[in-house]
Amino acid sequence: MITQPTLLLDKQICLANIERMAEKAHANNVILRPHFKTHQSAEISHWFRDFNVDCATVSSVKMAQYFAQNGWKDLTIAFPANILQWREIDQLAAGINLNIVVESTEVISFLEKQLTHPVGIYIKIDTGYNRTGMEAEDFESIQQLLNLLANCKKLIFIGFLNHAGHTYEAHSTEEIMSIKNQSIQKLLALKTFLKAGFPLMQLSYGDTPSCSLSNNFTDLDEIRPGNFVFYDEMQTNLDTCSRNDIAVALICPIVATHPKRQEMVVHGGAIHLSKDRLTLPNGDSHYGVAVKFTDNHWQTNEVIGTVKSVSQEHGIIKLNDEYITTFHPGDLIGILPIHSCLTANLMKGYLTTEGEKIEMMV
Amino acid sequence: MITQPTLLLDKQICLANIERMAEKAHANNVILRPHFKTHQSAEISHWFRDFNVDCATVSSVKMAQYFAQNGWKDLTIAFPANILQWREIDQLAAGINLNIVVESTEVISFLEKQLTHPVGIYIKIDTGYNRTGMEAEDFESIQQLLNLLANCKKLIFIGFLNHAGHTYEAHSTEEIMSIKNQSIQKLLALKTFLKAGFPLMQLSYGDTPSCSLSNNFTDLDEIRPGNFVFYDEMQTNLDTCSRNDIAVALICPIVATHPKRQEMVVHGGAIHLSKDRLTLPNGDSHYGVAVKFTDNHWQTNEVIGTVKSVSQEHGIIKLNDEYITTFHPGDLIGILPIHSCLTANLMKGYLTTEGEKIEMMV
Repeated sequence: MITQPTLLLDKQICLANIERMAEKAHANNVILRPHFKTHQSAEISHWFRDFNVDCATVSSVKMAQYFAQNGWKDLTIAFPANILQWREIDQLAAGINLNIVVESTEVISFLEKQLTHPVGIYIKIDTGYNRTGMEAEDFESIQQLLNLLANCKKLIFIGFLNHAGHTYEAHSTEEIMSIKNQSIQKLLALKTFLKAGFPLMQLSYGDTPSCSLSNNFTDLDEIRPGNFVFYDEMQTNLDTCSRNDIAVALICPIVATHPKRQEMVVHGGAIHLSKDRLTLPNGDSHYGVAVKFTDNHWQTNEVIGTVKSVSQEHGIIKLNDEYITTFHPGDLIGILPIHSCLTANLMKGYLTTEGEKIEMMV
Repeated sequence: MITQPTLLLDKQICLANIERMAEKAHANNVILRPHFKTHQSAEISHWFRDFNVDCATVSSVKMAQYFAQNGWKDLTIAFPANILQWREIDQLAAGINLNIVVESTEVISFLEKQLTHPVGIYIKIDTGYNRTGMEAEDFESIQQLLNLLANCKKLIFIGFLNHAGHTYEAHSTEEIMSIKNQSIQKLLALKTFLKAGFPLMQLSYGDTPSCSLSNNFTDLDEIRPGNFVFYDEMQTNLDTCSRNDIAVALICPIVATHPKRQEMVVHGGAIHLSKDRLTLPNGDSHYGVAVKFTDNHWQTNEVIGTVKSVSQEHGIIKLNDEYITTFHPGDLIGILPIHSCLTANLMKGYLTTEGEKIEMMV
């Protein structure tokens, strides 16, 4: 019996999401190196093993330590290397096959000097998201990094890595595919230009929207989607999944009803859902989609409203007309999160629809 | 030596914030029942003891359990009572003086039937925030609740409680004071109307903005500000504190610099700061104010830029002109959070500027 905000996980939906992506990678002969920042759970990571996944992506040194302790021997930290943590990086590299990401000569020089164990190196390439990385068109600067890496003994150049995060801002699936194609063209141009010196150069490609939509990963060596393990309303809104592919929902107790303004209050707020917000084409925005919760499952075919606002512990549900007087304090509802990664990070654990508790990194 | 995102706490600033509010409450002869949802820390709660604070506010049953286990004997859960947790409420009430908040006849009837220990009851009054509570003008419905409570044996009516959360949306300190005055007038009107039946009725008043600005709490019995223990950029922006009153900053390592677009990347993102955002009068918005970090302290007189965007682990700093080439990977900076409650909730612990580690509720 759920009595407080609980992140409920449908393992079967989750396994289907993993299987679909694993089969797609297999069919394309690319490595699936899933990003584990979404679930942050040793137990869920083991579910990937059944689909022949034996390497993963993480977003921090801490997360790499956690998954290394839980049996993962091949990890890429897909975040610009934090040189202040060189000791932890060195220690990890002593025990597993560790890859890190760099984008400047000073970081390369520092790490080559400090590290005592070999570390795989990806150069982060910015293919248009403009968050991190070397500009894909800046062949000269990238060549400089490669020249430096060519003389390194601890830093072993592996290839180029991008994250086409601008797919999240796309307005159509066509736009997502176009971003994907442009990004891959940029990576390929680099590879072509530089391959003489580095014939084994790998291309590692990220982001759930394009990996979900596309069935063709020709020219890539690996893909690193993460969010697909759970999906969420952000992906539903991008048409990169159906609402029935969402594997998690926050189950919340109703604590007050306000039929006069067509609202109700649930225990489930910013410290459960996060403040990630979805802005709809009509300009409205919300913090989650509220659905009925019956038979121990959230019901995607019974949308009752949206989360209009969140405070630290409160969620305010704006109810659709037909549900204004349906609910009472003590009832439970489900909320499909806008961004499942941040919701999972806040909830620090799952309950499966079969009643199993699943732990996460703390 | 800080090597990863760390929530640094200046204990002296924090103590001064507590002292100022405690003295103000004392001068006004009102009880200070501080809201502990901001710090969520047993150790920080003990700092209040030196200022003769012996009761507190919390926002969930879980938080009440934590502070009860840590020596607090008088707690109000200032959140609409979640009847699914009646067993935990009953158990708490067996050990401490527990107050809860109700706003409907069905919750009152349910709890009166189930509870075996007496619980203090506040009726939540909506004085204009429109989030939870009975409309302050709806005397008739409030009278109905009181009639029901008059016959309860376990639910002991104490008084009315409001949270003037709409002060956070005010555009001037005058507007905040005006909201405060209107809210208190509404509570007073209720009290006047109903005092014949309940001569000992208490008025409990919330929110940091008005409790920080006002020096006059005539007519109230207690105040429940919370955020003032740390303050943050939201409060600075409301002019309810100065930037030097902010007691916490997220210290972050720089991992990449992009002088061409006047940006740099830090390890410190949505899972550290939260996605709470401040929209400035000119329409710009940001996720935190970036300042220099030297001599083991953030420097409020050296603002270097703002946090333009956050992803799960990344913070993108938009740098002010004079700092475009100042920083390098491996340097540390401070970020003054928009909303210290959510930042603390995510960081799950503090490091004081004197080097002490402080734990929080997990």
